[in-house]
Amino acid sequence: MQQFTPAEWQSWERFYRANFINSLTGFKSASLIGTVNAQGVPNLGMFSSIVHIGSDPALIGFINRPISAAPHTLANIKANGFYTVNHIQASFLGQAHQTSAKYPDEVNEFTEVGLTEEYIEGVKVPFVKESPIKYLLSLKEIVPITFNATFLVIGQLEKVLMEPALQPTSDGFLELEQIGSICSNGLDAYYNTTLINRYAYAKPGVPLQKMATKK
Amino acid sequence: MQQFTPAEWQSWERFYRANFINSLTGFKSASLIGTVNAQGVPNLGMFSSIVHIGSDPALIGFINRPISAAPHTLANIKANGFYTVNHIQASFLGQAHQTSAKYPDEVNEFTEVGLTEEYIEGVKVPFVKESPIKYLLSLKEIVPITFNATFLVIGQLEKVLMEPALQPTSDGFLELEQIGSICSNGLDAYYNTTLINRYAYAKPGVPLQKMATKK
Repeated sequence: MQQFTPAEWQSWERFYRANFINSLTGFKSASLIGTVNAQGVPNLGMFSSIVHIGSDPALIGFINRPISAAPHTLANIKANGFYTVNHIQASFLGQAHQTSAKYPDEVNEFTEVGLTEEYIEGVKVPFVKESPIKYLLSLKEIVPITFNATFLVIGQLEKVLMEPALQPTSDGFLELEQIGSICSNGLDAYYNTTLINRYAYAKPGVPLQKMATKK
Repeated sequence: MQQFTPAEWQSWERFYRANFINSLTGFKSASLIGTVNAQGVPNLGMFSSIVHIGSDPALIGFINRPISAAPHTLANIKANGFYTVNHIQASFLGQAHQTSAKYPDEVNEFTEVGLTEEYIEGVKVPFVKESPIKYLLSLKEIVPITFNATFLVIGQLEKVLMEPALQPTSDGFLELEQIGSICSNGLDAYYNTTLINRYAYAKPGVPLQKMATKK
């Protein structure tokens, strides 16, 4: 086995280190977060640090980078309390990645990259029309992570929108690979997925069972 | 678009809801966390909530469920301050999933499921020998998430172990699909991945460029 130590990665060029450390932790969802600023200008940004926090209540978190590096999404969430998370498909992956460019606050990324705002009744923040699965969150808490000035932003699930083609299986599971939700790794790599297996709930001393998924 | 509301998912059967909410947030890494308890008994558990927090310093988080549901890993991390995170390959996926069974604290999951402890000099916590890429973390902070009694556990990267076959690209990126690190979704589904593209760093007004990865 090769071994790498802190002295080594501290000595690396900044982007080399960022690529290495970011890709070390493995695959993750990449989603577009939609917000609107206090002046009513929509914002759309790519986030790959979405994390499931709990199902009951349904809580979903993401890590926001330091304010100096990523100011707009977090400011907008603070300003009005709601935000959308939109899955990404290969058909609009280029546009999605382009939202990671540092546009000024007054620029609407939807217009700049060529994606379409979608609104539902009673909700001020935009969804991405091109996305076949997306959800609305309300801000619960912003937890500062003092070591590196990042934040864990915790939201409560308020609404889920899904194309009719995506039906949960008989046990509630969403087969995201069937509608082509992509996943990512590192700072800029995107992937399709292929199911290996689902496994039944594991119990001590009980042989492991593969699960046949039914609709 | 189908719309789902909180009243609906609150009315669902517990496992149906857990499957739905857990799979909604998309693909994620699934890794084995290795620890040792105060009596010296190794513990190995499956975690799918690893989240990148920062590259400099290199900080990696995971969400630990409420203590009543998942007591051992967190207690062990508190007891000695170190833990390992081990990528999972399809060749030992069944054994990895079986670690999610609720074994008593005095049981060594490595022995129970048929995986191999691996130790490096000066480190008390076990790696998974079968895993071709794995890393050591030291505990930095345990952040309680009060809404649902979970915890964000933040660790600092102390060591990376990697098979010689996995060489970073010229810009530091790790092509995890080439050594078959799996990803997961929901509670029990596991996936292989296929690269769609890497994209260059996005800038306003600059046409998006695909990246040719070089070793």
